[in-house]
Amino acid sequence: MSFKRIAVIGAGAVGAYYGGRLAEHGHDVSFFTRSDFAALRERGLRVKSVHGDFTLANPNVYDDTAAMPSADLVIVSLKATAKADYVRLVRPVVHDQSVIVCLQNGLGNEDVFADAFGNHRVFGGIAYTCINRIGPGDISHTAHGRVRVGAFRESPFPVAQQIADMMKAANIIAEAVEDLKWFRWQKLLWNIPFNGWGAALDLHSAAILRNAGGEQLIRDTMAEVQRAAAAVGVTLDQSLVDANIKQTREMGDYHSSMQLDRQAGRAMEIDAVIAEPLRQARAAGEGELPLISTMQRCLEAL
Amino acid sequence: MSFKRIAVIGAGAVGAYYGGRLAEHGHDVSFFTRSDFAALRERGLRVKSVHGDFTLANPNVYDDTAAMPSADLVIVSLKATAKADYVRLVRPVVHDQSVIVCLQNGLGNEDVFADAFGNHRVFGGIAYTCINRIGPGDISHTAHGRVRVGAFRESPFPVAQQIADMMKAANIIAEAVEDLKWFRWQKLLWNIPFNGWGAALDLHSAAILRNAGGEQLIRDTMAEVQRAAAAVGVTLDQSLVDANIKQTREMGDYHSSMQLDRQAGRAMEIDAVIAEPLRQARAAGEGELPLISTMQRCLEAL
Repeated sequence: MSFKRIAVIGAGAVGAYYGGRLAEHGHDVSFFTRSDFAALRERGLRVKSVHGDFTLANPNVYDDTAAMPSADLVIVSLKATAKADYVRLVRPVVHDQSVIVCLQNGLGNEDVFADAFGNHRVFGGIAYTCINRIGPGDISHTAHGRVRVGAFRESPFPVAQQIADMMKAANIIAEAVEDLKWFRWQKLLWNIPFNGWGAALDLHSAAILRNAGGEQLIRDTMAEVQRAAAAVGVTLDQSLVDANIKQTREMGDYHSSMQLDRQAGRAMEIDAVIAEPLRQARAAGEGELPLISTMQRCLEAL
Repeated sequence: MSFKRIAVIGAGAVGAYYGGRLAEHGHDVSFFTRSDFAALRERGLRVKSVHGDFTLANPNVYDDTAAMPSADLVIVSLKATAKADYVRLVRPVVHDQSVIVCLQNGLGNEDVFADAFGNHRVFGGIAYTCINRIGPGDISHTAHGRVRVGAFRESPFPVAQQIADMMKAANIIAEAVEDLKWFRWQKLLWNIPFNGWGAALDLHSAAILRNAGGEQLIRDTMAEVQRAAAAVGVTLDQSLVDANIKQTREMGDYHSSMQLDRQAGRAMEIDAVIAEPLRQARAAGEGELPLISTMQRCLEAL
């Protein structure tokens, strides 16, 4: 299988950066974005990156997926708040052999595409990176950048490997992983407490960890994530909790994406990052997650 | 019993206003304040009030209670965050016959004074009012203003009546109430959800009530306050919940004192308003108050 044509559905910071890297390295990439369409059309894409700056003077950009060519590889980097629009937006670029990678946060995204387009062709991608859109068509990549790609339901692992290899050849740190579910939950171990409480309480990471009560709130919330993960068959060791706290201290005053969304009055990825993990844990019989439950209610009150 | 000399310990907005009214009406009132000592000494007290403006050109003001004359009536309007200093600050003004009124928020304040100075002489006061200190020595009283005074432990009700009568004669809406505990919990029905979530989530009252999730969070938190109150023998009817929601909607974008404290980086009255009610409910066997418990943890993380 070869990916001659690539579509990036959702050219926010993550989609523009990774799709941009692939285009920079000679791939035929089309981008869908409504908010930055005019800017990308007129001024191109400019990326400042710790892995090397680059620009795309004339990216193939669309503000309507119906006008896009179909793609062999569809990278979905829509914000998870657009869930109700996933299928409608992606359908026009999907052909019989298309492979779809959800390069998104949280749980429940791959499911939508697998249900709509088939279990055999949907993959998950997890980006570990500090990327911000500092203006229309202006991306700043300040740290990290690894992508992990894994198979989902009935999709074949070798194709995940092929996607990762293609990314690696385009100056992206990428690897295929056997257990996508484990890595999704591992990331939730950080995302649920720091995105959730960061947004609900409007505190950046250093402010939360500044006092003992804050660190304990984070640790106890992580303990609930561990219980939720265990309910769905995922083991997250205590050493991961300690490592997360330590690494987050080293990040300084990091504002989580959900806190930034709150401050800007944008929709927050509550469903994918908080509510869906909670639903899955409850469906598996873990009913006692009071901190995460209350966190969800607080976020829904904002 | 007559109250010839009155001491106001803590001349913040509430202490300055009510003590100021008593001084305006001819009582001998001494004020203790550290933050506004210089301003009150140099420029006096200026009050803008819906019940009539007034000024005290030369209030008797002290920045050290040890220098104050002893008082027949001691009005304690210290912020509840000063709990560890209550006895030390008040002791110098207490003589054998002194009566002490805690004109403060939340639970656990009267106890400190009753334990230190005797059960027979401590009373509670609850102020229902919108008063702000808009600058040193500058008080703005924009709405309401009622004070309820009640006996505590072994203190005699007629003295509560005498205090209320004295206030009434000084242009204060005041009444003595038989059941101080009930009124304390009735006020907590509002204070716990709106002060607590208001500060934790940094939302004013209208923002919390703007969407269905927010109103439901408030209602469910009020249901927990009802359960906590029931555990300590206090019945708060559902009609009070509905009335509170309705009245709060009419208040517009009201910033609770705890939210203002958070925004200004000041200590919040978490212990008196949230933690002590929770402790009393738990001691009475009500262990399942997950929203209030999590709220307390969030506030302690700030």
